[in-house]
Amino acid sequence: MDYQELKNIYDTPLYVYNFDDIKSRYEALKSEFKARKSLICYAVKANSNLSLLKMLADLGSGFDCVSIGEVKRAILAGAKSYKIIFSGVGKKDSEIKEAINLDILMINVESSAELLRVESVAKELNKKARISIRVNPNIDAKTHPYISTGLKENKFGVDIEKAKSMYLKAKNSSFLDPVGIHFHIGSQLLDITPVHEAAKVVAKLLNELKAVDIDIKFFDVGGGIGIRYNKEEPVNLYQYAQGILESLKGQDLTIVCEPGRYIVGECGELLTSVIYEKINDKKRFVIVDAAMNDLLRPSLYGAYHEILSLKNTQTSNCDVVGPVCESGDFLAKDINLPDLESGDLLVVKNAGAYGFTMSSNYNTRARAAEVAIEAGKHRLIRKRESFEDLIKNELVEDFGAKY
Amino acid sequence: MDYQELKNIYDTPLYVYNFDDIKSRYEALKSEFKARKSLICYAVKANSNLSLLKMLADLGSGFDCVSIGEVKRAILAGAKSYKIIFSGVGKKDSEIKEAINLDILMINVESSAELLRVESVAKELNKKARISIRVNPNIDAKTHPYISTGLKENKFGVDIEKAKSMYLKAKNSSFLDPVGIHFHIGSQLLDITPVHEAAKVVAKLLNELKAVDIDIKFFDVGGGIGIRYNKEEPVNLYQYAQGILESLKGQDLTIVCEPGRYIVGECGELLTSVIYEKINDKKRFVIVDAAMNDLLRPSLYGAYHEILSLKNTQTSNCDVVGPVCESGDFLAKDINLPDLESGDLLVVKNAGAYGFTMSSNYNTRARAAEVAIEAGKHRLIRKRESFEDLIKNELVEDFGAKY
Repeated sequence: MDYQELKNIYDTPLYVYNFDDIKSRYEALKSEFKARKSLICYAVKANSNLSLLKMLADLGSGFDCVSIGEVKRAILAGAKSYKIIFSGVGKKDSEIKEAINLDILMINVESSAELLRVESVAKELNKKARISIRVNPNIDAKTHPYISTGLKENKFGVDIEKAKSMYLKAKNSSFLDPVGIHFHIGSQLLDITPVHEAAKVVAKLLNELKAVDIDIKFFDVGGGIGIRYNKEEPVNLYQYAQGILESLKGQDLTIVCEPGRYIVGECGELLTSVIYEKINDKKRFVIVDAAMNDLLRPSLYGAYHEILSLKNTQTSNCDVVGPVCESGDFLAKDINLPDLESGDLLVVKNAGAYGFTMSSNYNTRARAAEVAIEAGKHRLIRKRESFEDLIKNELVEDFGAKY
Repeated sequence: MDYQELKNIYDTPLYVYNFDDIKSRYEALKSEFKARKSLICYAVKANSNLSLLKMLADLGSGFDCVSIGEVKRAILAGAKSYKIIFSGVGKKDSEIKEAINLDILMINVESSAELLRVESVAKELNKKARISIRVNPNIDAKTHPYISTGLKENKFGVDIEKAKSMYLKAKNSSFLDPVGIHFHIGSQLLDITPVHEAAKVVAKLLNELKAVDIDIKFFDVGGGIGIRYNKEEPVNLYQYAQGILESLKGQDLTIVCEPGRYIVGECGELLTSVIYEKINDKKRFVIVDAAMNDLLRPSLYGAYHEILSLKNTQTSNCDVVGPVCESGDFLAKDINLPDLESGDLLVVKNAGAYGFTMSSNYNTRARAAEVAIEAGKHRLIRKRESFEDLIKNELVEDFGAKY
């Protein structure tokens, strides 16, 4: 890829996604489940760009959404409503109402209080809401505490016993149709054993439900397949799928899988330009035009992102930092890079997931543009924000002065 | 304040700022420096709402800006250009150019590489750029590492020796006018002794500069005055100012102070509605409609924000969490609140600084509205974001489907 050309055309900071690679990863995962009915529901929160969703929708992907905004994005991008799942621990009544009216595949219910809300909204609409219940199997996903979700001390899902009683309640309601079962134990999982353990625990529940005439059609194993940021051993997709398929022997149902980071994480890069170097007797800082408002992961999770220079000269140790006025504003610490000059390009790798979606306007910084690479061609898929975009909703009073 | 009325009119999540309190805090700080010429330059990054800036500009406040976007905000809000400072470790040439053309008070230079950039841009414009130099006094501010900025291992400023040589270079340049000196050792400082120490160190430099005919007119002590989030002892403003005044005995110059959090932090609240409660055998979760995308501080810094209920019934231990799909999405952990029902209001206190400015659209969540309270009346100062706002810049391709 000619990074310099991309910079010349679109400027930096710039998110660049390789759509061909994203397609390959989608197809690779899909094919691992070919022995069974399956539906890949891409987790929109990882990267919600409309053009990216459209490309996945065209491949037949479904979508896992965690807000009504994400549901709307999926539909606007051309997703079939019967391939959309609405998850999340805190859905407002207005969101539940819209989801039912849009006739999506199912609402993933995360608590008994929510089950009552969904029933009540469905009743108001005189419709039957298709639901799944998120079971919390109390299994340690062994990942970052912020993205571990399968333990009882997490806010997600309900335990097995509670799930059973909720399914019974749903079965006996005229406004609820329990069609799915769901679990998701965490994100960026590198050891897939906990997923298989969870699948076994939840599959056992399937049989108990069958015994009381509750026939689950969708077995949703969540997402969380880890990717390689540094030296991680990539997850073996075949083993991942086989473990799930094994736990479902003899069951006739559709396997739903909700990958986000796995699909897009390694297929995105953040291009940034060096503003200048700054060296004192303790440290070498490479100051670049991307900052924590563009890519929050290093600051929020202490996440590692490889950073490449286009130069091949001798390297030395440095921190790569942004222009935001916080010491917490860094993209990498203690890495090796060649001597750099103002305008030199750096490529922040593996920034396709939880990059742009977590970006903000902190320090009144306009958010980056996004570009897709497909079949060797590049195209803009999100315009760079303007100052006018940033202040638009604040122009509610009369500001005499004009910039 | 009638929170319920605000909710009925503006919905939640909602940022509410008390403009009268903000004015009082501005005036209180200003008056502590009355013995000398002084300029309060409000740090826009803490809360950049245009109406708030306008109110401060009307009081005569100056503005400390860390991006050209913030400079534009200040000017749009009616600030005098000669009261605007442009700081930050990574200014692009285009930003420097605009700042010089706008004839602001001074550009705060953070490295020798930047001094060269400013000189070069000024030369191109055939103008003389007024500058200050940020001195890093290598003093430990004893605050959160992410917001501590006065140590050599931080990316900010230059050490005393480097500063001297930069001042000499600036003095000898036809395109630079060194009018100020600046330091800022960190944010949320509760012990002000380090500020006084830093002031002494930097004041000593003033004399050395005078000896070589460099006459500094603005002595900028930065910001960082801590506020009370929990049980912190508030900073004594009188002592704060006196320590600075003492270090400047016999000097004829204007003291510049850059408070952000101090001015707005305690004057803002985030109103949020309970969606529902969720209790398992390990934990009680209160799920609310504000999330880490609305207020990042608890998740990013582990920051404490008091949360009040409008109910007076018996309390029990709980976590207050948002709807975002991360365990890192919490507003408070292990606090005591009464039993709550769907729709009940909670008030997140001390959210006036680094609240809205750090908010994002993570999970395709539209950002909150902002309201001002002034002389007993409320008014909208930022409209709630719409779904259309969120996708506007992505509509670069033809999406057949319409939501």
